[in-house]
Amino acid sequence: MSKKILVVAGDGIGPEIVAEAMKVLQALQADGSIDVSIEDALIGGAAYDAVGDPLPAETLEAAKASDAVLLGAVGGPKWEPLHISKRPEKGLLGMRAGLGLFANLRPAILYPQLADASTLKADVVSGLDIMIVRELTGGIYFGQPRGVETLPSGERKGVNTLVYTESEVERICRVAFDIAMKRGKKVCSVDKANVLECTEMWREVAVKTAADYPEIDLSHMYVDNAAMQLVRAPKQFDVMVTTNMFGDILSDCAAMLTGSIGMLPSASLNADGQGMYEPIHGSAPDIAGKGVANPLATILSVAMMLRYSLDAPAAADRIEKAVSQVLDQGLRTADIMSEGMRQVGTAEMGDAVVAAL
Amino acid sequence: MSKKILVVAGDGIGPEIVAEAMKVLQALQADGSIDVSIEDALIGGAAYDAVGDPLPAETLEAAKASDAVLLGAVGGPKWEPLHISKRPEKGLLGMRAGLGLFANLRPAILYPQLADASTLKADVVSGLDIMIVRELTGGIYFGQPRGVETLPSGERKGVNTLVYTESEVERICRVAFDIAMKRGKKVCSVDKANVLECTEMWREVAVKTAADYPEIDLSHMYVDNAAMQLVRAPKQFDVMVTTNMFGDILSDCAAMLTGSIGMLPSASLNADGQGMYEPIHGSAPDIAGKGVANPLATILSVAMMLRYSLDAPAAADRIEKAVSQVLDQGLRTADIMSEGMRQVGTAEMGDAVVAAL
Ligand SMILES: CC(C)[C@H](C(=O)O)[C@@H](O)C(=O)O
Ligand SMILES: CC(C)[C@H](C(=O)O)[C@@H](O)C(=O)O
Repeated sequence: MSKKILVVAGDGIGPEIVAEAMKVLQALQADGSIDVSIEDALIGGAAYDAVGDPLPAETLEAAKASDAVLLGAVGGPKWEPLHISKRPEKGLLGMRAGLGLFANLRPAILYPQLADASTLKADVVSGLDIMIVRELTGGIYFGQPRGVETLPSGERKGVNTLVYTESEVERICRVAFDIAMKRGKKVCSVDKANVLECTEMWREVAVKTAADYPEIDLSHMYVDNAAMQLVRAPKQFDVMVTTNMFGDILSDCAAMLTGSIGMLPSASLNADGQGMYEPIHGSAPDIAGKGVANPLATILSVAMMLRYSLDAPAAADRIEKAVSQVLDQGLRTADIMSEGMRQVGTAEMGDAVVAAL
Repeated sequence: MSKKILVVAGDGIGPEIVAEAMKVLQALQADGSIDVSIEDALIGGAAYDAVGDPLPAETLEAAKASDAVLLGAVGGPKWEPLHISKRPEKGLLGMRAGLGLFANLRPAILYPQLADASTLKADVVSGLDIMIVRELTGGIYFGQPRGVETLPSGERKGVNTLVYTESEVERICRVAFDIAMKRGKKVCSVDKANVLECTEMWREVAVKTAADYPEIDLSHMYVDNAAMQLVRAPKQFDVMVTTNMFGDILSDCAAMLTGSIGMLPSASLNADGQGMYEPIHGSAPDIAGKGVANPLATILSVAMMLRYSLDAPAAADRIEKAVSQVLDQGLRTADIMSEGMRQVGTAEMGDAVVAAL
């Protein structure tokens, strides 16, 4: 049965990198490995510019009717003066909330071919393979009350609310435990249970949920220590599970340990296996339109999409092998370029992956 | 005029490391460089064990009557089962709130003698010298409402509240700007203004306050990007200013970039220049009582105390030079030991600093 993919390219380098991912999808479609139909829609600043809304209703409707969404990137300085409710980021947050994409999977993997790119010493990061499972539709990102009010004294007060229910914590812990069962069976739950009652409850729920996973080795770490340990000895981690805000910070920190964020995909899943897939890097407005952006994170996001939402694990494997092969061939976009390698542009890199498939 | 110091050694290695800092204070007192009177009091788990309260009223009273407080460390697994309101950490948080210590200064400095200790490549961190200014008495650490309630459905919901008023943001920004004026005149304010309204207001106040500091080069960064940039290129930062929670995470991340958290002091100041001084590392229960802990962060906290609260900058300089000298002599505690150096215990390290004064 044909699966539906919605493509939302977004802003900055979004359209360029998504174009290369489309080549890969089309190649797999052409050789009969997958059966997909592809539509596209507006999101982010591009949608705001066209219709005054970073997440037009048609985009969300089309997303709901799809099996998976492929996102490029959103945002840029052009839209920063806008009110928070109209910013490109709202398109992304609205998509997460609207589709109920509560589970954000952010792998931090060091490609052996790119080991030199890391700012960390080789022995500290070689072989790094962490999966960060971030809660994505709750916590302080969505909690009420929120906003800025003026006090009787005339001064303003800004408020945001961190809130989790037990069931929200339980379901994200289950995702982490299920993933860990297919990996190293080690989960580190990150909280600030010594200060924040909400995350003290988080820890209790993690412990309780783990009772259903006797093989999982569950540990707990305060978020400040987790940030330290990622720098000190990142290979101690297998799967990490944490709140929306802590996951935002720690997953970016973990990604940067690899030195090549242009290589890292992500998946955001709901309870039905529907998912949104995107590179973890941003819209990089400074290099947009120049044809130099690295499309590999987006191409690897397609691999995650095939694996997690489109039930095509063999095709996913082929993409990942092809990416590894172009790296072996010495092809590098500017962001991962190093001595002795051959520098290529966005399109040439995409073509090389298609050829290697 | 004699200044009053309150010493609260706390838990784990606290008493051992504070003992060495006391030797340094006494040596300076003996040679007439400073004129101080020293008292001590209970805090943390030690206070809970003795009187059932991690911050006894007498301790807070004695602190208020002092010019400065020297803290060892609080906490340990022994007290983790306690309710959050009785945990050792409450002693620390109560001291911060009780004394109004809103400005937390956390330097992340790489000692050239210890450059190898970092997990980062030498060129990325050599010469690193960042000052993180963390807001310490507001934000989600202290915001109301907070706690866990049971919903009609029977499931529990945990809540904490991030809240800042404009005046709270302004005063911490001023501290950061004042410090930057004596350094590189560059301040990076870290927020999550694209998602959290409270920190959108933070950014606005930072911009407004900067108008009084025309020489300061103020930039803004989202917290996830800041965590990335600390790993990618930490030397881009001079002074960073941020919220209580973000500061907790980023200052630990920055500290770990140096690879030697046993070397890093911190200061927590109120509007009157009263301050609490403590090493940034924790109570290290695993090595407590063994005489192997590194006392240098605590000794360097004394130097910060002399500089910021006791108006004795010359004595502060002498301590910092003495610490540098013992490192030059090749003395190392276990945590910073490397080949060719001489490993010493806590007391021997303290004695060496006194000798070098
Ligand atoms: C763009 C922003 C709203 C978003 C987030 O904070 O979740 C981004 O940083 C991410 O991690 O996907
Ligand atoms: C012990 C804990 C309450 C404290 C904090 O979170 O502030 C510590 O991590 C720190 O940074 O001083």
